[in-house]
Amino acid sequence: MDYCIGIDIGGTNIVIGLIGPDGKIVRGTKIPTRAADGADTILSRIDAAVRETAQAAGVDLAEIGAVGMGVPGFVDHENGISLHSVNLNWRGVPVAPIMREKLGIPTFINNDVRMYIYGEAAQGAGKGYRHVLGLTLGTGLAAALVVDGQLYHGGGNMAGELGHITLDDIPYTCKCGLKGCLETVASGPGLARQARDRIREGRDSVLKEWYPGDAIEQLTAKDLSRAYDMGDPVAVEVLQTTGRLLGKGLASAVTLFSPDVVIVGGGVSAAGERLMAPIREALQAHLIPAYWEHIRVVTAVLGDDAGVIGSGLYAKQRAGLQA
Amino acid sequence: MDYCIGIDIGGTNIVIGLIGPDGKIVRGTKIPTRAADGADTILSRIDAAVRETAQAAGVDLAEIGAVGMGVPGFVDHENGISLHSVNLNWRGVPVAPIMREKLGIPTFINNDVRMYIYGEAAQGAGKGYRHVLGLTLGTGLAAALVVDGQLYHGGGNMAGELGHITLDDIPYTCKCGLKGCLETVASGPGLARQARDRIREGRDSVLKEWYPGDAIEQLTAKDLSRAYDMGDPVAVEVLQTTGRLLGKGLASAVTLFSPDVVIVGGGVSAAGERLMAPIREALQAHLIPAYWEHIRVVTAVLGDDAGVIGSGLYAKQRAGLQA
Repeated sequence: MDYCIGIDIGGTNIVIGLIGPDGKIVRGTKIPTRAADGADTILSRIDAAVRETAQAAGVDLAEIGAVGMGVPGFVDHENGISLHSVNLNWRGVPVAPIMREKLGIPTFINNDVRMYIYGEAAQGAGKGYRHVLGLTLGTGLAAALVVDGQLYHGGGNMAGELGHITLDDIPYTCKCGLKGCLETVASGPGLARQARDRIREGRDSVLKEWYPGDAIEQLTAKDLSRAYDMGDPVAVEVLQTTGRLLGKGLASAVTLFSPDVVIVGGGVSAAGERLMAPIREALQAHLIPAYWEHIRVVTAVLGDDAGVIGSGLYAKQRAGLQA
Repeated sequence: MDYCIGIDIGGTNIVIGLIGPDGKIVRGTKIPTRAADGADTILSRIDAAVRETAQAAGVDLAEIGAVGMGVPGFVDHENGISLHSVNLNWRGVPVAPIMREKLGIPTFINNDVRMYIYGEAAQGAGKGYRHVLGLTLGTGLAAALVVDGQLYHGGGNMAGELGHITLDDIPYTCKCGLKGCLETVASGPGLARQARDRIREGRDSVLKEWYPGDAIEQLTAKDLSRAYDMGDPVAVEVLQTTGRLLGKGLASAVTLFSPDVVIVGGGVSAAGERLMAPIREALQAHLIPAYWEHIRVVTAVLGDDAGVIGSGLYAKQRAGLQA
């Protein structure tokens, strides 16, 4: 019962990991999601992949105490239901009950961002801290809070929407309808958009050479890091501006939650110090010194494993097993 | 053991209440603080007043399961020590151990604002809600979060400093050193200062008649409500601007915490709808609709009793008795 299974369901791939008693992945596998096949087929495929993974590791299903699944979108974590996932085209799918039936193992689900941050809090950059504020910079900007090893969900299960804190100095209107949401700049598409806007304004940039004319639409946040390292003024400005805005938004979160550590994760966090330095600079400028002296601001360390590890350990906790 | 004692220690008065099994005050008393007398004398005076109050109510000390004390300033609630209270001139006073020794009843302390919000959450405007964000508008602006009946303290015990969230459109520099802290406008002194500044700029106002010349320094937040009701343009503008700024700052707090209810308390909340209407207006403007539809935004209902009731019920909870 010391083992658990963590499953991170993405729009493209599903990553499955068998996690040992030490909280580390013993054996993993990745299968394509193929969302169009529908929930029944996908969950059957996961069932098969979990069994194969356990068998390949020489671990009996009876030794696995819990199965955890990170599901994108809105989730009823108490009853294990995927309420609505746009990416997967799921609506009201009782994921946990179905998987529990298939595998005969207690199964728990939660939102994929929360599972990712839970993983970083338990085994990654947040290990050893009581109050962890984690955020994921990716196609959007999301956040989660873990206090004493427990995820904080908030009223209506809606806590942590850091991406929809608004700042006056952000000029963009968000998909949500508000003006100035942090996510409109602090996200992969937000970074690309800012660079594109500057190039359209006639600013000189190596990005223009890489993506001439309409090709500029294909610019990604990754390109910005590459251009930044060449000293490209647009890339430098966009990454620094974005970091400072994110730091300013985070200052509110830190002042209210008083986390011990702030973890910056998600794909875009690969920009590393290019983004972290201005984040820290703005945080310090907008925080009472006592907070600044108290917190650590770090990048996530588990990479893609965070969601898998978080899902597994979360399930273990929910099952009442020592995580 | 069904009774408890709640004690709210202010800079001027100490309010003591004997609280019955139903969470309501059975009998109360008020004694002057006289901070200059020092901690030993004050705590002895509290001891005597507690005994008198119980006796007058016909309740034996043995029937009292817990004593709770709300102390201004920095508090080590775990060990019951007042770390530093500027108002009381206390530094490192082991309040809870001393009172426990005197009365022979388990005694617990916490910060006075947290006790006030705990009281409102348990028996006041937050009763029945799982996620309560409460704030006190007084000489400063402070906030506390109560989740599932538990106070959230945050890392370094520093959570909830809503007053030190900064907004670009606040021009004042705060005592803490930051520019644009919410507290510089959303507080008694903040309201008075904004009115004074407008009058110094030559704006016409009835406040100028009430406080001619240098007397304007004596203007209080209460005067603003009175002038507001006479349609005074300065008073109307200051209260509406302040409410909107507070609502804007609260929007970040709501987006991160997702409380079920926001309670506006403290002396300045006596301004009522004059302040609440613009708070709600700005909240709605800066929130994703799902949050706005979820939350209730209300004024505190227990008045000065909140701190006493909160202190008593908090102590009962800490003592492991049913609150």
